Amino acid sequence: MKAGRQSVLLDPAPFLTATAAVAGPMEGQGPLGAGFDLVYRDLRAGEKSFEAAERKMLQEACSRALEKGNFNLDEIDYFLSGDLLNQTTVSGYSAAVLGRPYFGLYGACSTMALALSWGAMLVAGRFAGKVLAATSSHHCSAERQFRYPVEYGFQRPEQAQWTVTGAAAAVIGIAGESPRITAVTTGKVIDLGEKDSFSLGAAMAPAAASTLIAHFQELQRNPDYYDLIVTGDLGKVGLKLLKQILARSGYFPEGNLNDCGLMIYNPHLQQVGAGGSGCASSGLVVLGHLRERMRAGELQKVLAVSTGALHSTTTLAQGETIPAVAHAVALEM
Amino acid sequence: MKAGRQSVLLDPAPFLTATAAVAGPMEGQGPLGAGFDLVYRDLRAGEKSFEAAERKMLQEACSRALEKGNFNLDEIDYFLSGDLLNQTTVSGYSAAVLGRPYFGLYGACSTMALALSWGAMLVAGRFAGKVLAATSSHHCSAERQFRYPVEYGFQRPEQAQWTVTGAAAAVIGIAGESPRITAVTTGKVIDLGEKDSFSLGAAMAPAAASTLIAHFQELQRNPDYYDLIVTGDLGKVGLKLLKQILARSGYFPEGNLNDCGLMIYNPHLQQVGAGGSGCASSGLVVLGHLRERMRAGELQKVLAVSTGALHSTTTLAQGETIPAVAHAVALEM
Repeated sequence: MKAGRQSVLLDPAPFLTATAAVAGPMEGQGPLGAGFDLVYRDLRAGEKSFEAAERKMLQEACSRALEKGNFNLDEIDYFLSGDLLNQTTVSGYSAAVLGRPYFGLYGACSTMALALSWGAMLVAGRFAGKVLAATSSHHCSAERQFRYPVEYGFQRPEQAQWTVTGAAAAVIGIAGESPRITAVTTGKVIDLGEKDSFSLGAAMAPAAASTLIAHFQELQRNPDYYDLIVTGDLGKVGLKLLKQILARSGYFPEGNLNDCGLMIYNPHLQQVGAGGSGCASSGLVVLGHLRERMRAGELQKVLAVSTGALHSTTTLAQGETIPAVAHAVALEM
Repeated sequence: MKAGRQSVLLDPAPFLTATAAVAGPMEGQGPLGAGFDLVYRDLRAGEKSFEAAERKMLQEACSRALEKGNFNLDEIDYFLSGDLLNQTTVSGYSAAVLGRPYFGLYGACSTMALALSWGAMLVAGRFAGKVLAATSSHHCSAERQFRYPVEYGFQRPEQAQWTVTGAAAAVIGIAGESPRITAVTTGKVIDLGEKDSFSLGAAMAPAAASTLIAHFQELQRNPDYYDLIVTGDLGKVGLKLLKQILARSGYFPEGNLNDCGLMIYNPHLQQVGAGGSGCASSGLVVLGHLRERMRAGELQKVLAVSTGALHSTTTLAQGETIPAVAHAVALEM
């Protein structure tokens, strides 16, 4: 099944059998809003803190994914989750509520593809019949942890991105409904020296390129093998850089390459800087939107490449650079 | 290979083929000090910060594990690592240096068993021939992140534990030297409402009990199947509680149950409160000490149960409880 140093072809290919995505108010007003399973009307979702709201969203996404697939929680062999908050507490506390054997992940905004990759491997490796994979991010919990509390009203530079509020979950099964997860490419961490914590798209673009090129070369696929290739949250700046790096290696995926962070908001009506970011960016777009388009017959083959920046406020304060990683999962009907 | 809802018997059982452990000065002075591959003379390890020192230690442990097994980095299919620092930056930055496909984990102090479990499944599932699994903790980086900077001279309560400084790494291979990882039991997150951030042993004991009982029941093994069962970092308080909980379920592993946090320091000569803690507690004791004792013929079967508390300073400030998890790996010659 090993198809190269970073890529694995999954055989049998597990099914992405049920998914759900719940979104914050702004994401609900975006162009994909109608497709989400639930749109919260307020950012606190009725909870006492933004962090508690994010936990509620993650747990709601999990419940809805199970419901949509007619699964009981008890059928789930493993729960896999990660998020952006320190010590990935959204995931850890949610795991306590769910009560399933738990693999905690950290991949920053690459978590969706990381969770789908590991989940698909657990199923294809016959360690599990069904796993529940989830991730979340929240604009206000992330902003105050990584940059400034939103109440402070900080003026955001042009290259800054907007952390997506929401959560997404998927049930991956040995049997079930398509699409199937046919291949995964696990990313190497790439650090080209970016230090601007507002320019995460630039920090992550080389990692996305590294993973995409490995995927294309190892599986001997060209970009046009896929109806659509989406990166997680490169935004305007990062996507432009990615195209430049890919072009240098002879890949020109123009029409079928997009970024989830650019798809989730309306750039003319919503002020989101260079685009969306956060674990929920690829989570909501891939699990809440693209899977439906695949099932509707609009897309047959999608490559989802979630991208994550692996710094912390401590490392940036200490003058360190921003390493980044990208993981890819191939979804096919 | 599934042996129950939480346990998997690995077939073929991967080899824990090479390991290394590097330690801080206090750990070097402890009863197991002579067994570590390197003892740093100062806590900064010649680096500009404690965080940079921890990265150096993790990378050194990885280099030494590869060296001891006569492996090239290029032979490693995946690097798996996690640590305690926000956004697991020790692992992320080290992954950038190592340049191997990277799975980022978060399990707090349960990370060693989490990484060995995941790594063993990757190998047993034929997704990898060799993986490098690592973890680290550092007294000063952890104390200042979770509690107070050590320079502040805070008076520690009796139940507080001492974060172990050091790093450990293991090469897990489809072939190689024993012991083998024969079974893994993946923990559920347990939250019984503990809120004292100094009493992590108490928060983690029920999680350790949950995982141990699942392991015994699912694999139909009694505690005396093992020559030694070690928990990761329950310390004095947590180990006592664990024994009470196990006794209620009819398990009385008296002579063959110990805690890595109690083994790594000399309680009479070293002031470490209720014992050691941190990812490096089980890392150093299992990968730097017990594996050698197994290879020397002193122990045939060891069950290592790393224990982790999944809170953050944010959740504690918000009045939340401390959820915990424990993962178990069975090592057999």
